[in-house]
Amino acid sequence: MSSANLLIAHGGGPTAVINASLAGVVGEAQAQPGVRRIFGARHGIEGVLVDDLLDLTELTAAELTRLERTPSSAIGSCRYKVGETDYDRIAEVLRSRDIGYFLYNGGNDSMDTCLHMSEQMGDVRVAGIPKTIDNDLAGTDHAPGFGSAARYYAVSTAELCLEASALGIQVSVLEVMGRNAGWLAASASLARALDPRFPLLILTPERRFERERFLAAVASVWKSTRGFVVVASEGLSGPDGQVLGTSGGRESIDAFGHKMPGGVGEYLAGLLRSELGVRARAEKPGLLGRASSVLTSEVDRREALLCGRHAVSRLCSGASGFMVGLRRTSVGGYDVEPVLVDLAEVANVERTLPDEYIRDDGLDVSSSFADYCLPLIGEEPFGSYLRLPGGT
Amino acid sequence: MSSANLLIAHGGGPTAVINASLAGVVGEAQAQPGVRRIFGARHGIEGVLVDDLLDLTELTAAELTRLERTPSSAIGSCRYKVGETDYDRIAEVLRSRDIGYFLYNGGNDSMDTCLHMSEQMGDVRVAGIPKTIDNDLAGTDHAPGFGSAARYYAVSTAELCLEASALGIQVSVLEVMGRNAGWLAASASLARALDPRFPLLILTPERRFERERFLAAVASVWKSTRGFVVVASEGLSGPDGQVLGTSGGRESIDAFGHKMPGGVGEYLAGLLRSELGVRARAEKPGLLGRASSVLTSEVDRREALLCGRHAVSRLCSGASGFMVGLRRTSVGGYDVEPVLVDLAEVANVERTLPDEYIRDDGLDVSSSFADYCLPLIGEEPFGSYLRLPGGT
Repeated sequence: MSSANLLIAHGGGPTAVINASLAGVVGEAQAQPGVRRIFGARHGIEGVLVDDLLDLTELTAAELTRLERTPSSAIGSCRYKVGETDYDRIAEVLRSRDIGYFLYNGGNDSMDTCLHMSEQMGDVRVAGIPKTIDNDLAGTDHAPGFGSAARYYAVSTAELCLEASALGIQVSVLEVMGRNAGWLAASASLARALDPRFPLLILTPERRFERERFLAAVASVWKSTRGFVVVASEGLSGPDGQVLGTSGGRESIDAFGHKMPGGVGEYLAGLLRSELGVRARAEKPGLLGRASSVLTSEVDRREALLCGRHAVSRLCSGASGFMVGLRRTSVGGYDVEPVLVDLAEVANVERTLPDEYIRDDGLDVSSSFADYCLPLIGEEPFGSYLRLPGGT
Repeated sequence: MSSANLLIAHGGGPTAVINASLAGVVGEAQAQPGVRRIFGARHGIEGVLVDDLLDLTELTAAELTRLERTPSSAIGSCRYKVGETDYDRIAEVLRSRDIGYFLYNGGNDSMDTCLHMSEQMGDVRVAGIPKTIDNDLAGTDHAPGFGSAARYYAVSTAELCLEASALGIQVSVLEVMGRNAGWLAASASLARALDPRFPLLILTPERRFERERFLAAVASVWKSTRGFVVVASEGLSGPDGQVLGTSGGRESIDAFGHKMPGGVGEYLAGLLRSELGVRARAEKPGLLGRASSVLTSEVDRREALLCGRHAVSRLCSGASGFMVGLRRTSVGGYDVEPVLVDLAEVANVERTLPDEYIRDDGLDVSSSFADYCLPLIGEEPFGSYLRLPGGT
């Protein structure tokens, strides 16, 4: 390939740092002599299908710096499930736009699309850039987007713990995103980096909800403190495998056939009120957890940029059919290096929270989880708060 | 009074800046020759009743600076409703601790307690410090705590708008705190300071929910954009005066006999799905909106500190039975001065959002609301985001 145009598309829900990856892609592509024009698909694959592309070639360095720090997706994204018949149309658009490099930034659904693209687009070189707040992508130590969402939940949980202990009258249930993977619910445990004494219960979807065990644990903590936090994954299910709290018909189905859960927090708060007679309420920040710009992790942002840059650089040096992954390199401190992962290894694979990170009783994380997760949320998640001796 | 001790107590839910007022109280009291020891009641009036006081006299300047920036209430608070029989016990504790100055930091329930205190505590001088995220206190242009919560909702709404337009597939319903007053729901409109084109509907509890009008408005916006935000106050009620979404029995009653609403967001999202067939989901950050440290308004923090300082300074110069209020002084720019308000004028009075700030159809704020509210949320609520021409 002498030189060709490059196209990047976003798939699935935006993260706080997906634009940082985009800035990395555009910046690196501008530096590559093999790339002529740089296009971004408006609203992901849907934009490709209707040839709705934005020309990003002339973005200035100053604009790229701002793009890095812009939340959500500046070119848009979609949840469209690409069907077999769509690939011909995509190939047609790519040919007419002289696309030689195609990048897809997304999660495991998107990596499946990416794999099909690499198999069906002839000599177009194809790369995946990892992105998910859920951290359920295989082939990488963690995915860009997770560290920032984890920071959001760590800080929010700490603030909720401070608030709960100040009033000392109720259990706050925090419903956390994560359909099938408990990484984000687990990240709430990092609130303990502010105060290891915070009483927390953490319910991840890898373990079925056990009602009696849960009620006994809450009752036990309630004896010593009347203000604490229960963190629950939105995908938490009961013994029957049904997500808690969706029986009222409030669930709906997305384009990929996934259930959209909601209501776990309200369900648990209601259960605590009715069964234990304690005051309880639920918070569900939902999408705010992946959209927050002020709680973005700088580590996450740097790594998102790195993944974008590396994907373009390796495409231009001849590689194709890969997703960029992150591998930890350090022994003492924390560092990562980008690696190439076969798309077939990550497409549609869901990496849930391993057993080693879940406490045996399923009501908390294990102590080793913080070693894994704390470096990802960036420096100084908490301010230098004053905690009074004897205070709350 | 030659010299005496000072006691401060917090009432009701903490705000992001209640500790800034506390720092102001302690700092000013340390400088007043008429004050000997400075006490903070643990968990508000409940701490007073059991003589559980923290001695804050020796806090250093560095500690006060940290206290200013500590979210939640460092000495705790409570929702205890003081009964007539409690005042004798309170008087006893105040006498035994040689309290000559009593300050109560809270909202309109607390100012009622404060009024009773000033009437029943003999020669103890009594002052109220305003505090409420709801901004429903009379006698003041606005209350400390509101500006920070307003910043939280303005920024969160902007981020949600960016996220909604990037995906372009659904309506996001943001449930906002505010039982009877729509100030906070209205503050979400400040997202337009980032982009005046954001399509937003804003439902405040001052107007009864009109189902058909609401559905027609959503359907109309949906025609032009498939990603936008509906902001709804948690206290929104239907034609029958019942708060929406609480029919499922998920409401509960607090110590003051107020209903604790919840579920308005889920109710509206469900309504949009079932009646219009649009994809819709609800977010309910709840307590996170008043606990956030990273979204604290610096203006709010400064004013909270000012109110604490001013209350002590005026108590020590002989005043009693007042709440500190804030009055706007500026013509061009924004500034405030502290004033004294008679406690009888604010006790139990609820100041709702005036008609002039609500658009005639009840589905948005009026254009004058931003003039009132924007200065309160502090400088640079939004980063210098890059919005691509033709982007989302």
